[in-house]
Amino acid sequence: MSKTTPLRRENLLSILRREELDAMLVTGESNVKYLTGFTGDSSYLLIGAGVCVVISDSRYTTQLAEECPGLDVFIRKTSEKISDSVAKVAKKAKIGRLGFEGHLMSCDLRDALGTALDKVEFRSIGGKIESELRAIKDGDEVAETIEAVRLAERGFEVMRASITPESTELALSWELERAIRMFGGKGMAFAPIVGVGDRAALPHYSPQRYAVQQSPLLLVDWGAQTYRGYRSDITRTLMTGTPTKKMEEVYNVVLEAQLKAIAAIKPGAKCADIDTIAREHIAQAGYAKYFGHGLGHGIGLDIHEQPRFSPNSIDVLQPGMIVTVEPGIYLPNKFGVRIEDDVLVTSNGHEVLTTIPKDFESMLCGA
Amino acid sequence: MSKTTPLRRENLLSILRREELDAMLVTGESNVKYLTGFTGDSSYLLIGAGVCVVISDSRYTTQLAEECPGLDVFIRKTSEKISDSVAKVAKKAKIGRLGFEGHLMSCDLRDALGTALDKVEFRSIGGKIESELRAIKDGDEVAETIEAVRLAERGFEVMRASITPESTELALSWELERAIRMFGGKGMAFAPIVGVGDRAALPHYSPQRYAVQQSPLLLVDWGAQTYRGYRSDITRTLMTGTPTKKMEEVYNVVLEAQLKAIAAIKPGAKCADIDTIAREHIAQAGYAKYFGHGLGHGIGLDIHEQPRFSPNSIDVLQPGMIVTVEPGIYLPNKFGVRIEDDVLVTSNGHEVLTTIPKDFESMLCGA
Repeated sequence: MSKTTPLRRENLLSILRREELDAMLVTGESNVKYLTGFTGDSSYLLIGAGVCVVISDSRYTTQLAEECPGLDVFIRKTSEKISDSVAKVAKKAKIGRLGFEGHLMSCDLRDALGTALDKVEFRSIGGKIESELRAIKDGDEVAETIEAVRLAERGFEVMRASITPESTELALSWELERAIRMFGGKGMAFAPIVGVGDRAALPHYSPQRYAVQQSPLLLVDWGAQTYRGYRSDITRTLMTGTPTKKMEEVYNVVLEAQLKAIAAIKPGAKCADIDTIAREHIAQAGYAKYFGHGLGHGIGLDIHEQPRFSPNSIDVLQPGMIVTVEPGIYLPNKFGVRIEDDVLVTSNGHEVLTTIPKDFESMLCGA
Repeated sequence: MSKTTPLRRENLLSILRREELDAMLVTGESNVKYLTGFTGDSSYLLIGAGVCVVISDSRYTTQLAEECPGLDVFIRKTSEKISDSVAKVAKKAKIGRLGFEGHLMSCDLRDALGTALDKVEFRSIGGKIESELRAIKDGDEVAETIEAVRLAERGFEVMRASITPESTELALSWELERAIRMFGGKGMAFAPIVGVGDRAALPHYSPQRYAVQQSPLLLVDWGAQTYRGYRSDITRTLMTGTPTKKMEEVYNVVLEAQLKAIAAIKPGAKCADIDTIAREHIAQAGYAKYFGHGLGHGIGLDIHEQPRFSPNSIDVLQPGMIVTVEPGIYLPNKFGVRIEDDVLVTSNGHEVLTTIPKDFESMLCGA
């Protein structure tokens, strides 16, 4: 991480020059992590021309030295408010115009900073770190995301191999998480969905005590997180018993929709158009009203990043973006199918990072 | 939860009358949960004289009906900004003076609301829900916290029974979490600390691949979370091999400090004084500089709530508060001992909610 964080900070400085700001106070945890490599919390980065200081507390002195060697650090006393520490550093750096993250900073912190730095002009520059920098992954980030995909896949193989008719959703989600951690992942990328039969048709389902044998279909939506914080996001819909003809038909509609959408991924493609490709395929098969969510989203330090695939998205694909492609068909009280892969936009097309097979035959795993 | 949330909302209305506010926009997730019983996210509560509406989106329509029957709900379209939805509800309710949570609300949301509701007078009323309401638990909350303690204890018994010389910190933390979930917990209350030997002396340690057999001492700091979101927080320091005389001595100093502090817990006691009781006992034994953190904190929907036990605390104990009491002695590069229980302040004293034994003999569990 230490190799590329200086470059990321240089890119931010270019944005600050364009926005005519002397410096920026970065308060978002994922944004501080992105710009410094520091994996702790409760710490801010003040960065500008001639100033680059992490403002933290004594719990993190050692960790900062290890994770961000060479970076200036201001360790505040526990009795000192973080706004006062920021003010000290900002005054010393003689900052006139200071950008901040208005979508993340609390009103009270903004007010306290305004009082402590009454000569400074503040301007919210919103989510530019997210939209202009983090949306496009550098080589280190691509490698970390591939690691997150591999961890997720290894965990899935263990879980799949352990399925019995009596396995519950809860026990399987558990097996998945255990395996990912034992292989060296920090944990799950998000609370996984493991849904048997009609449970697979519920959009925000949490694993419960339903057993695999209650239906031939099992939907698993999961991801791993690496120790440096990068995340994967995959879905497979397994056939743990003898699937119905309808299940097979719906599965193949979703798979075709996904393959068509992935095939269109390349630099310059509009995210709304990619979404439309999958949505129209599903509509033509007669399932339009059973696909209610967007086609996918960027992944990285957060599980939902830019760009977004949806009918209203104004995003355009660029090389280095990593996105999920996850169409689904959800038949209420019957079953649901979703297939999701992680895809890197390359200079002239795309590369699917997920390697688990997804053809219908490969989903058959009679428990 | 539905039985007591109306009373909680009544208590908040009293605060609003005292503060001369027509209504309050509650945006903090734990605060919305506390006042409504709703366990989802991305939802706000607008509450005042004659208005009480949860502002949410269509993902949560069913869940809100189940968890908050009878409560008014405004489901916004996904294309509508939440600030515009809040403005609609607030205008309909003819609100003149609106309180908000300045320590939690983002600057951008505050600005958007200010524009959309340009006739409304806004006033931040900070953390009053946390300090005046949530710090004192009602009967439902005490019952939920006891459930969280029981889940943590059952998980600990399973983990303890599974220890072998080869068990790693990672595998044990894993066993703990698995057991808590299989017993019906939502998960851990926080990322657990499982530290062998000198690792037990590090304040912010995460479980790694160190094996139990590398030291006779194993520190475990963990808690469970119930499905309704309440949390427990316990620490035990096990002797998995033959402890040194020094380990036994330090253990008993920490235990005596903890027992003395707990004995002084009653309504009206100053939190700073309780902290001092434990701190002085440790100092008199010659370990003053090896106990660097506060003695404890409130627990509930969040893992760190009010009140706080620390030398500078101005908090005073009241019946219904639930606090941790967790003194420790940390000898760098040698070992650390911490003992932590969850304690309810009763009308005339206290009740220790944790039931796992903590005398030195009970810690001996040769792996």
